[in-house]
Amino acid sequence: MFEPGVRAGILATGSELLTGQIVDQNGPWLAERLGRLGIELVDELLVGDRRDDLAAGLRFLAGQGLDLIITTGGLGPTADDVTAELVAEFAGVPMVLDPALEQRIADILRGWAARHGFAGDALVAANRKQATVPSGATVLNPVGTAPGLVVSLAGGPLVLVLPGPPREVRGMWDAALGTPEVRELLARTPPLHTTHLRMFGLPESEIAQTLREVGAELDLDELEITTCLRRSELEVDLRYRSGAGEAVAEKLAAEITRRHGSFLVSTDGTPTDEQVGRLLAGHRIGLGESCTGGMLAGRLTDRAGSSEYLVGGVVAYSNEAKTALLGVPAELIEAHGAVSPEVARAMADGARATFHSDIGVGITGVAGPGGGTEAKPVGYVCFCVTTDDGRVEARDRVLPGNRNDVRERSTDVAMHLIRRILTTSAT
Amino acid sequence: MFEPGVRAGILATGSELLTGQIVDQNGPWLAERLGRLGIELVDELLVGDRRDDLAAGLRFLAGQGLDLIITTGGLGPTADDVTAELVAEFAGVPMVLDPALEQRIADILRGWAARHGFAGDALVAANRKQATVPSGATVLNPVGTAPGLVVSLAGGPLVLVLPGPPREVRGMWDAALGTPEVRELLARTPPLHTTHLRMFGLPESEIAQTLREVGAELDLDELEITTCLRRSELEVDLRYRSGAGEAVAEKLAAEITRRHGSFLVSTDGTPTDEQVGRLLAGHRIGLGESCTGGMLAGRLTDRAGSSEYLVGGVVAYSNEAKTALLGVPAELIEAHGAVSPEVARAMADGARATFHSDIGVGITGVAGPGGGTEAKPVGYVCFCVTTDDGRVEARDRVLPGNRNDVRERSTDVAMHLIRRILTTSAT
Repeated sequence: MFEPGVRAGILATGSELLTGQIVDQNGPWLAERLGRLGIELVDELLVGDRRDDLAAGLRFLAGQGLDLIITTGGLGPTADDVTAELVAEFAGVPMVLDPALEQRIADILRGWAARHGFAGDALVAANRKQATVPSGATVLNPVGTAPGLVVSLAGGPLVLVLPGPPREVRGMWDAALGTPEVRELLARTPPLHTTHLRMFGLPESEIAQTLREVGAELDLDELEITTCLRRSELEVDLRYRSGAGEAVAEKLAAEITRRHGSFLVSTDGTPTDEQVGRLLAGHRIGLGESCTGGMLAGRLTDRAGSSEYLVGGVVAYSNEAKTALLGVPAELIEAHGAVSPEVARAMADGARATFHSDIGVGITGVAGPGGGTEAKPVGYVCFCVTTDDGRVEARDRVLPGNRNDVRERSTDVAMHLIRRILTTSAT
Repeated sequence: MFEPGVRAGILATGSELLTGQIVDQNGPWLAERLGRLGIELVDELLVGDRRDDLAAGLRFLAGQGLDLIITTGGLGPTADDVTAELVAEFAGVPMVLDPALEQRIADILRGWAARHGFAGDALVAANRKQATVPSGATVLNPVGTAPGLVVSLAGGPLVLVLPGPPREVRGMWDAALGTPEVRELLARTPPLHTTHLRMFGLPESEIAQTLREVGAELDLDELEITTCLRRSELEVDLRYRSGAGEAVAEKLAAEITRRHGSFLVSTDGTPTDEQVGRLLAGHRIGLGESCTGGMLAGRLTDRAGSSEYLVGGVVAYSNEAKTALLGVPAELIEAHGAVSPEVARAMADGARATFHSDIGVGITGVAGPGGGTEAKPVGYVCFCVTTDDGRVEARDRVLPGNRNDVRERSTDVAMHLIRRILTTSAT
């Protein structure tokens, strides 16, 4: 059987998370970090800044038999920031001013105010509030101006109180792991292992059928299996704790590889972007983008070290730019239209020539919402990747969804075509 | 007093949401839609695919006195998809096969299988599971292959059961609003109004001080006020239901404008990108990007109609590309370094020349993690926007955070510089 281990929950507070203004970035980041530590994230609850809702959320999580609750947000200087106070109430301890902390925050604020030319009055008031913490809490040094807190609930979970801004959460994480309370928790965490299978182009139902059929022979109860369709990629995760689980995961992964190998991107969780980055080592790539408007360049340069292989890119939105910067003949555009396999090919070759690279990519399509025709509807996108030794990977597809979907999926397809041309041996 | 209205909660299911693999996109989208309808989102709970956790989550939300619960995910063909079943249990009704729905899904699948060359077996099995729904539920036509469901809990909230993929949620939304059950709910929803103030470059503590001072004169209890620092922007939302609330919101907005007007981007919630898009109408803009690697182009082209003003961009990662495509003199790079205000200026002017545009943007910086020096540390970025009538907006800044933060903040700063040059009258 798949044995449960140390279980965690997240309570993310901030009314802006519930109005659609901002997307919670801390949850996914914390989830990934917890997973590496073998801690399972069971629930994440997003609540507004209202005290009652926050208290109800804390009660719910505390009642879920969790070992760890992480709160994010609600530590700012404004009156709607009440997380620290609430956790203190929950732990049954008073709030106390920590003079050393007040001094530390004051130092941070003085430097900031001096650089930005703001007066100190508002900052000092904020300071005192942020330096008032639950009695007995372990204080984590601020990354911004809010300190983190570690609070033990008597007979209940450990509560790790973190600020809202993702940068501050990330900057405080190692210090949190170093506190005696969290170290004690980690010491009793059995390791959790995951086999990640990443596929491109395979429908989820095919994996469902494989699991049904394989389930007759393998004891899948040893695993926790999740499948997730993420734009164009299907991710299958096999999680296990025991040696028996490991054996089943291995057999299942082998069977999925045997049946669906041609759709397999990686079996070790390597994200497509990382794989493409590694494969590009020693190459030089140049890009010609139209409908994706720089998104492919943005995605490739997201990785540190990408300057080693990405020479550059042209966002050629207008026909003139396609001709002037990528050398696409105006007659070719005239004859086939700007969105055509022929123009995608010419853009790829042109990008190679412009950037003196050995790999070139061309993307041209109708991202919508306007511009579609019967022959070339919204979502119709032409891709081409060419190499200086004469290889060509070309596709044209009608991709589903709105403008944003089409652009993102186009970027996905282009990444996979680059991957393909780099994993297909020359000649 | 600020009166509560119709309250909603979201239960998002999918283990992948809790392992950090994917970020919940449905919550923010639904939140924004609910807000427009005057429905307040109180809680969003993310849980894995485990039945017990899902059931506990449903019980928690049902106990929160909500009028509407929206579930997303868990409607797929795999065995870990149990949402429909659980909602049926909760409503105390059996699951029944809907033959008309089965037929509709089969039609969708047949077309898909034919186009992609997959056999029908796995698809048919999936089909039957997805066509089995809680007895008495109102069925929403599938956008993918999963139907949506509207289920009334006796004496409890209305439950709207939606699929997980964002594209399907969005595609099903209008149909959901058209069901008799949701229409009835909307009929008893008092309108909720929001004044959005968007600022750039103002610290949150300044707003906190303003609110404290203004609170002495205005009855802020009429409002629900939230402040949210979102990368470089500070968003202040004033929500109200009553006429008295409206008057207070107006006075408060006026006072914030009086005190912090130079930091104000918009008072009607207009996002920066939309504002920049509108301001660019009638102009032609060309981009030269280095450290942002196409992200500014990607962001500008995110808006439909951007081809009207964005001629194109060059991602000039290498010095050669800066020289060849943007005409940056090699001696200038030699003399000042590739990351320098001089080169940013030359890139902006070069982008104007290359794309025959009236506005040019140049961005060059050290995104990190490597490449920093004492004089030009990681995060040091130079920006320049120039126009053909000789105006120049130039900045150089050390931006905080990791590579991703620096690149995103750089894109923010560039957007605001474009905004500024377009709102500053030519002399």
